[in-house]
Amino acid sequence: MELKLNRDTFTAFLLNSVPIAKAMGIEVESIENGQVVLSAPLLNNINHKQTAFGGSLHSVATLACWSFLHLKLLEAAQQEAPIVIVSSEISYLRPVSGDFLAICKAPNRDSWEMFLKVFQKKGKGRLQLSAEIIQGNQVCVTYSGTFVAIKKSI
Amino acid sequence: MELKLNRDTFTAFLLNSVPIAKAMGIEVESIENGQVVLSAPLLNNINHKQTAFGGSLHSVATLACWSFLHLKLLEAAQQEAPIVIVSSEISYLRPVSGDFLAICKAPNRDSWEMFLKVFQKKGKGRLQLSAEIIQGNQVCVTYSGTFVAIKKSI
Repeated sequence: MELKLNRDTFTAFLLNSVPIAKAMGIEVESIENGQVVLSAPLLNNINHKQTAFGGSLHSVATLACWSFLHLKLLEAAQQEAPIVIVSSEISYLRPVSGDFLAICKAPNRDSWEMFLKVFQKKGKGRLQLSAEIIQGNQVCVTYSGTFVAIKKSI
Repeated sequence: MELKLNRDTFTAFLLNSVPIAKAMGIEVESIENGQVVLSAPLLNNINHKQTAFGGSLHSVATLACWSFLHLKLLEAAQQEAPIVIVSSEISYLRPVSGDFLAICKAPNRDSWEMFLKVFQKKGKGRLQLSAEIIQGNQVCVTYSGTFVAIKKSI
């Protein structure tokens, strides 16, 4: 994935798009190599058990997937497309007791190509994306969200 | 449900337990009549489409359910019990374009009694709780989360 924006530009765009992400301390770590990596500090997202709040973990995973689709569509369709989240599922496998990453990796090639074909033809496409929350080397949370992108009329 | 804490005391407890809830502007509206109602302003949780960010909606729904279980266990078991969230699913039915409520209603009686029996006997119980996000009179989001409560050793 060759992305059209650099990391700093995209960070500013993301935090401007979703201001609560600033309070969560979210930063863009990487938008290269076919994946989006966001980070967040435990401190901003801590709960009374001294672990990360489940709602924050969900938020960072959602934003990783949203960012991935936004950037990938910019690259593939040469345009920004409003993206709506339809549904998501999250499993909290183990507590997050330190600063953490949310990683959204590219979906398989067939899914992406089918999505893009429908998006280009019908002006609207639906895609399922997955993310993981990583602390240290451990996967602590798995997330899957269904997103719809809508082509802007020209 | 007769609750052991009043609204202000519980609000302070909730915001102290999960500090990011302050940035989201979450307030406790009601902890009576067998349900927990939290509110949040659009402004704190807005996205670039001028609607509420999906991650914030998930956070407020999670906290409504967590609050319900915390308070109900205080009442039923006369003790605080650490609560862990295991998984959740959320469906975004329509955009939230104004201030909103998250309502967690009591599960059916059989589910609750089964949960409480297992919790009392084995020191650990698992319960599924549901919440809705309401704006105006419309249900905009449905949420379901699975929570585990662990009895503190005395």
